Amino acid sequence: MSDELKQHIASAFDRDLEGIQAQILKMGGLVEVAIHDAAKSLETRDEELAGQVVTGDEAIDAMDEALNEEAARVIALRAPTATDLRVVLSVMRMSANLERIGDLSKNLAKRTTVLAQMTQINGSTTALRRMARDVELMLKDALDAYIKRDEALALDVLDRDRDVDQMYNTLFREFLTFMLEDPRNITSCMHLHFIAKNIERMGDHVTSIAEQVVFLATGSTPDEARVKEDRTSSDPSLSTDIELE
Amino acid sequence: MSDELKQHIASAFDRDLEGIQAQILKMGGLVEVAIHDAAKSLETRDEELAGQVVTGDEAIDAMDEALNEEAARVIALRAPTATDLRVVLSVMRMSANLERIGDLSKNLAKRTTVLAQMTQINGSTTALRRMARDVELMLKDALDAYIKRDEALALDVLDRDRDVDQMYNTLFREFLTFMLEDPRNITSCMHLHFIAKNIERMGDHVTSIAEQVVFLATGSTPDEARVKEDRTSSDPSLSTDIELE
Repeated sequence: MSDELKQHIASAFDRDLEGIQAQILKMGGLVEVAIHDAAKSLETRDEELAGQVVTGDEAIDAMDEALNEEAARVIALRAPTATDLRVVLSVMRMSANLERIGDLSKNLAKRTTVLAQMTQINGSTTALRRMARDVELMLKDALDAYIKRDEALALDVLDRDRDVDQMYNTLFREFLTFMLEDPRNITSCMHLHFIAKNIERMGDHVTSIAEQVVFLATGSTPDEARVKEDRTSSDPSLSTDIELE
Repeated sequence: MSDELKQHIASAFDRDLEGIQAQILKMGGLVEVAIHDAAKSLETRDEELAGQVVTGDEAIDAMDEALNEEAARVIALRAPTATDLRVVLSVMRMSANLERIGDLSKNLAKRTTVLAQMTQINGSTTALRRMARDVELMLKDALDAYIKRDEALALDVLDRDRDVDQMYNTLFREFLTFMLEDPRNITSCMHLHFIAKNIERMGDHVTSIAEQVVFLATGSTPDEARVKEDRTSSDPSLSTDIELE
């Protein structure tokens, strides 16, 4: 193969890759809006906005499908080298993560109607919205880190997911306490707990995107084995001390 | 390229593919055992068995990584055609699904210790184990369907996931009722609900594997838009009628 031909193929691949990366950023932007609007609709009980999030998820799903097709097309057509292949595969994984965050946002938005009919739990939706806001900013930074192959920023995102996990654990305790105080709070708190868990899972998907960035930037996964803990699953004191109250 | 060379490359790809498919089946087998043992440890409060599930998840994670590397190697080396590429990419997606089911099994197993210390809720762990058993069989059939490219069996798996969703919705109602009847049940029921939700999510991942099979067998995704519903999110009556009791 002549050098000229190689060069031509390489730049065609670069163009393809730029196209894919532009798509993933556009998709990321839609998902940021979905998180934001879902959390806002919950706090303000805005059923119209919630409806927009639900409808808007179709566009996100369609982008995921288009991205996968495009990535497969590029792999088949360009037969990229190991490093380039890694970039394309990482985009496919990121797309899957974004699609799942979109689904989780849709689930959040769907609870707006239910929550609007229930006993209000003081301050809870504000706390949930703050948690969602953190996840939204984490996603924004993870995507920025991706574009700049910025390992430090990606590690910062990983770090912040621990705070989100912590917020979730705190809320879990709070909801349990509310339920124990007054059984009329049980149904509301079950729904609020669902919501908190949903947001916590969004954080996990953002984490997975940030891990891809670290991998792309450094060629290895984040040093520290991330101790991903839903503490409610393994900390007996969390439940027993509440039970003894 | 001579026909002989083409033939040689094709058979090398086939061998690679067979290797990858053997790996995914082995991984699937480990995940089936993980589901089974996690549910059993919950029902029998067998903390030793639970510990084995937690430790065993490392092997599943390692297989996921190895599979991804191997698949990427095959794509880079063989530059498969569109159809062959689709098979390799589907294996990567299936591997991601299996890895997640492994994680969810680990989460289940971790709750054994917590649950052992709590108020027993009559019959609940038996119902949960039955639900887990269904998911385990669905996974077995999804993998069989994959090997045989058996669309009918894959569609049957998709169908059975609706039953699992239904079991989850029933359990959710039951747990709410138990909590409302006696606040001392609240903490146990919150944990039991987590478990039910975990199993329901395993079913979703099996569904995703079955959808891959349909796609591989027919070239298109399942006709019927699957109405995947966690009914607790959108059915206000589910909560309000209980709340009014």
